[in-house]
Amino acid sequence: MKIVVLKFGGTSVGSIKKIKKITDIIINYKKRNFKVIVVSSAMSGVTNDLIKKSIEISDNFNESEYDALVSSGEQVACSLIAGRLNHKGYKSRSWMAWQIPIFTSGFHKNSRINHIYKQKIYKYIKEGGIPIIAGFQGINNKERITTLGRGGSDASAIMIAKFFKAQRCIIYTDVEGVYTTDPNKLNKAKKIKVISYEEMLEMASLGAKVMQPVSIQDARLNRIDIEVRSSFIKKSGTLITKRSNIINNKIITGISSTHNDSKVTLVGVKDKPGVAASIFKPLSKNLINVDMVVQNISPNGKETDLTFTIKTEDLNKTKKIIRNNKNINFRRLLFESGVTKISIIGVGMITTPGVTFRMFQALANKKINIQVISTSEIKISVLINKKDTKKALTILHKEFKLEN
Amino acid sequence: MKIVVLKFGGTSVGSIKKIKKITDIIINYKKRNFKVIVVSSAMSGVTNDLIKKSIEISDNFNESEYDALVSSGEQVACSLIAGRLNHKGYKSRSWMAWQIPIFTSGFHKNSRINHIYKQKIYKYIKEGGIPIIAGFQGINNKERITTLGRGGSDASAIMIAKFFKAQRCIIYTDVEGVYTTDPNKLNKAKKIKVISYEEMLEMASLGAKVMQPVSIQDARLNRIDIEVRSSFIKKSGTLITKRSNIINNKIITGISSTHNDSKVTLVGVKDKPGVAASIFKPLSKNLINVDMVVQNISPNGKETDLTFTIKTEDLNKTKKIIRNNKNINFRRLLFESGVTKISIIGVGMITTPGVTFRMFQALANKKINIQVISTSEIKISVLINKKDTKKALTILHKEFKLEN
Repeated sequence: MKIVVLKFGGTSVGSIKKIKKITDIIINYKKRNFKVIVVSSAMSGVTNDLIKKSIEISDNFNESEYDALVSSGEQVACSLIAGRLNHKGYKSRSWMAWQIPIFTSGFHKNSRINHIYKQKIYKYIKEGGIPIIAGFQGINNKERITTLGRGGSDASAIMIAKFFKAQRCIIYTDVEGVYTTDPNKLNKAKKIKVISYEEMLEMASLGAKVMQPVSIQDARLNRIDIEVRSSFIKKSGTLITKRSNIINNKIITGISSTHNDSKVTLVGVKDKPGVAASIFKPLSKNLINVDMVVQNISPNGKETDLTFTIKTEDLNKTKKIIRNNKNINFRRLLFESGVTKISIIGVGMITTPGVTFRMFQALANKKINIQVISTSEIKISVLINKKDTKKALTILHKEFKLEN
Repeated sequence: MKIVVLKFGGTSVGSIKKIKKITDIIINYKKRNFKVIVVSSAMSGVTNDLIKKSIEISDNFNESEYDALVSSGEQVACSLIAGRLNHKGYKSRSWMAWQIPIFTSGFHKNSRINHIYKQKIYKYIKEGGIPIIAGFQGINNKERITTLGRGGSDASAIMIAKFFKAQRCIIYTDVEGVYTTDPNKLNKAKKIKVISYEEMLEMASLGAKVMQPVSIQDARLNRIDIEVRSSFIKKSGTLITKRSNIINNKIITGISSTHNDSKVTLVGVKDKPGVAASIFKPLSKNLINVDMVVQNISPNGKETDLTFTIKTEDLNKTKKIIRNNKNINFRRLLFESGVTKISIIGVGMITTPGVTFRMFQALANKKINIQVISTSEIKISVLINKKDTKKALTILHKEFKLEN
């Protein structure tokens, strides 16, 4: 059976008009003899409105009720899609997680799918039906509704593609695909035709908001080809697949940049085992996300300087937490808001020497000062002054020939 | 166990503020050591908005998808109520029909509850929990979501009261109770303290929009005391109970009136068996609701005059259907829009002679012409000119001492 999973995000089903439009996409696959399984998010705005209501009810809204509450949005979208397909003469119906069922484990608001019962859906698609499955939701072993956290409908689509051995999972969204860099920041940004899971993971966690890292990781582990494409424009999108499927001429696949970061440096920290943990544990407990961490070797073996970045909105909280931290000793606390992390990403750099040098040289030629450097196997990140962001993106995009 | 079922209508949960308010009502019963089961409708406006969406999707929206669609509204209301009770420190959770489960039979959009599994809810209330059950919904034996039709949440509440042997079922709504007549039409209308199921049935089907007849009938068959009262004003409402519980001094309990009716008369209809069926069958097929039907005895045994009333909005359609009806023969078709049906209702009239006379005399004294008369055991209805409605209500309300 040629099975394809089509996932539609909130903006793709954001109005009755759009729902009508995406049913045409579904019908097209059906006409091409695919067995189609559809996964839908809630209509855009609905989930946020429900969350707002929950906050008005309680600043500590019960988590299992939260899941019951917010999962209702997908129920609406799915029945409207199925209703439209029925109207067009196609056999289709909505499926809630409890009807399939889709079982999850873990905590409310942030569950993970661990089993999908296939019998009913298999029977239904064999009979020619188009199942419209509510994304983002599952049930736990107590028969309570659970949700999968941010980007949960993508996670649903990928797990459904896995369990039903789909040929492909297509994520329909409001962007045309994944770009070499943020098109809002650099208009020379180009759509990437094909990208590896690993590169996509680095792109995603660095700010490419197309998919949540957890979903990409699920796809990677289960070797599911994902295509990200637009619901509104009939153009091929970006294929996310395994490295061996990619014949890549480029060393670098994309460049990402953050915005609104701050840099914090603790000067003269007493260098003893466990000091980093003492610094970061209270930050993590306060939900402050620490990004780049760089620790210099201490010249005298007794003291060290530790630098890390955070979102600027967390800066005041961070300063307070560090100053009140009795478990650490340091001489001075430095901080600077208005920094940007620029990262170049590409599996090509594994086999190509000199990428780091080329990046630094390109930035130096434009007199852009590098404050902090951090590297991984397929990524090099540098911290620069925010005002240089555009200049840095432009030169790196050109240096690594991403505009061709 | 002292169990009470509290049902909240759409206006009672129409905003976050109102949801907070009704949780205080719930807590009050809990404090008085009741085991409380709550049944909720969707927040007002939500169901209509969903119905509107379904119509935009298709003028013939699939009925099982319709049920999946509109039942989502109750899910939202229930989780918000449960979330609020949790916030206040009470053990509470939402229950969808599939989680209990509540089984229905019949057609989609208009199902009837035929079984409620009690184990889980019993266990939950014994542990001190307050279950918040989604009204209006059930599941069928195919595990599809069903809904109970108009006023379905009342039906849910009454069947839940039946299965759990509740002491009382309290319907919280936006009116203070049932009135002797429509307070919008007659400001001397008074709240009725206690009314029998039978009287309430007549009141309901005649235009008292407090509860749907089917729910009252369910309550009557299962001998469940219902109290209708306001969510917003702390005053006792109207108790609907069996006749033997009522010590009633009044002959008449209430007066109802329709508005916007039309009268249709077929003059000289060939009087043979099955002729009435031939007339009414095509009307019924076209969803035209025929109300009063009066047939005069034909003087010559061959012809008869037949009069009935319909809603004025159906008048043109009715005329067309009758004129195109090849199965009936008549000499003339008369019609008159702008008539009103006034009914006096009361179990007291069974044992009190002369009620009919008193009604006719009172109307005659005010020179109100009676066009058609129809009577049942506990009701007398007359058709009058619409312009006399207010005058008729006033005189009858006074005649039967309803203002005291």
